[in-house]
Amino acid sequence: METIMQEPLFHRVGIVGLGLIGASLALALKKFGVAKEIVGIARSQETIEQALNQKIVDQADTCLDSFLDTLDCIVLCTPLRAMSPLFDQMALFSQKKEPRFILTDAGSSKLFVVESARRAFGGELPPFFVPGHPIAGSEKSGIGAGTADLYIKHTVILTPEPETDALATEKIKSMWRRVGAKVDVMSVDQHDRYLAMTSHVPHLLSFSYMHAVASEKNDVLYDYAAGGLRDFTRIAASDPVVWRDIFTVNKKAVIAVLNQFEQHYQALKEAVISEDDVKIVEILTQSKGAREYFSMVLAERGKK
Amino acid sequence: METIMQEPLFHRVGIVGLGLIGASLALALKKFGVAKEIVGIARSQETIEQALNQKIVDQADTCLDSFLDTLDCIVLCTPLRAMSPLFDQMALFSQKKEPRFILTDAGSSKLFVVESARRAFGGELPPFFVPGHPIAGSEKSGIGAGTADLYIKHTVILTPEPETDALATEKIKSMWRRVGAKVDVMSVDQHDRYLAMTSHVPHLLSFSYMHAVASEKNDVLYDYAAGGLRDFTRIAASDPVVWRDIFTVNKKAVIAVLNQFEQHYQALKEAVISEDDVKIVEILTQSKGAREYFSMVLAERGKK
Repeated sequence: METIMQEPLFHRVGIVGLGLIGASLALALKKFGVAKEIVGIARSQETIEQALNQKIVDQADTCLDSFLDTLDCIVLCTPLRAMSPLFDQMALFSQKKEPRFILTDAGSSKLFVVESARRAFGGELPPFFVPGHPIAGSEKSGIGAGTADLYIKHTVILTPEPETDALATEKIKSMWRRVGAKVDVMSVDQHDRYLAMTSHVPHLLSFSYMHAVASEKNDVLYDYAAGGLRDFTRIAASDPVVWRDIFTVNKKAVIAVLNQFEQHYQALKEAVISEDDVKIVEILTQSKGAREYFSMVLAERGKK
Repeated sequence: METIMQEPLFHRVGIVGLGLIGASLALALKKFGVAKEIVGIARSQETIEQALNQKIVDQADTCLDSFLDTLDCIVLCTPLRAMSPLFDQMALFSQKKEPRFILTDAGSSKLFVVESARRAFGGELPPFFVPGHPIAGSEKSGIGAGTADLYIKHTVILTPEPETDALATEKIKSMWRRVGAKVDVMSVDQHDRYLAMTSHVPHLLSFSYMHAVASEKNDVLYDYAAGGLRDFTRIAASDPVVWRDIFTVNKKAVIAVLNQFEQHYQALKEAVISEDDVKIVEILTQSKGAREYFSMVLAERGKK
């Protein structure tokens, strides 16, 4: 991060969705001098009042339409399923007038977002749209959890498509870097697979396993939780509706990673059934080695 | 735990295997006045010297045989696969002379231990043997990790069989209670299933999943670890040889729990494939509810 105060990158940024991700970005763009003015769009009047009272944004409204002509950057921070109608609005606007804005988003499945945008824009992605995803989850949510420092040392993935304008991508890169993030560029498929592997599938397995344990209807089991159950099922307390959306929206990558897991799982299960000592130790040793390397990477980043 | 100092329960206890479990028990039996004298049996001369120098035991040797006539309690704290020859020794001894000792163990698969003992004693379990398992794991191991307070507030499971003498069971119960533990009595099958469910299968799934992630040969994945991968794979850093033994020795229960997990896993996977929103939310809500109840139980015990 540069320490010299730079010129603002944008004159007026519109942030649609003022939850943790959107509110934090609004605060960060101000704190780091990336935008002169921020317009916040939210569904509820309560959020709008909170955003204005706490000076998270300069202006706020429930509708994006009237601002489309005055913004030079729009960031969609809504839930995934709320993005389609927003793309439709922008597609309508762009039929009447050449948009001046760059568009990006914070959605966690890039295939779903890119397909929604393509559909709205008649089959081709508009060059001013740079699909993105800041990897900065938290157990907290909502506007009250917003913090200007959320993105510092976190990674933001951008997945520009062939149609995407290279300068637009560079500007969105600069925006995220100036709020403290590291930016990785990769394909839509790669992003969705990485997220399925590091987050979605661990959640799915943890939910399933907790479901199996709960089906025993036997509280005594929880007395022996020190043996691994506690860590292994911690993420099974996550929000059911949020995770239903993630699993279905990122279905293609989730199922691919589940199938890959099943191969490794079956190999170990079969080695246990046939008591193949050599094979079992080989698998466990590789896993342990990988996990220790992973711990080292985490420790280096102070996240252990 | 009683605060009044009681009479010692045993005159002379033999502890076979002076790792974390055995050394801690030796220290605890002394500290809480449960045994007048402790004899430690260990394979290596180094461990024997350490046990004597640090006054963990009063006497120590590499061989149990010469002590069999003088002990009133023997606790086997060796790895599971080392127990068979010890049962053989005791069976031989008992053919010549009626044993005065009560025997118990700390093995983590009760079916394996009970079958080994039955085999050694010609098909029938000796009445003086009370199979047991203190649930007091730790990442630490070895005699140096021993501590007199290891068993305080931990659970010990006893799995007496029909042949087991009720008075012997009561004495072993008293022994563990006097070092601070809570004692549960259940069947061999139930013990093995509980342990498979709360410890062995979470480890197996965690190892498998880490193995699948490692097969990607892509370090970038570890950049996105905050999403769940970190917690979910923590136990995959466990010792491969220890876990090979556990998986194979407790195979029957491990495979049964894996099959149960697979049913719940397939149900969720199919709901995701068919985008059955209602079914997905139903499963995730039940899992979340069970995990929150589990957290509450842990919090009550100060283990969260």
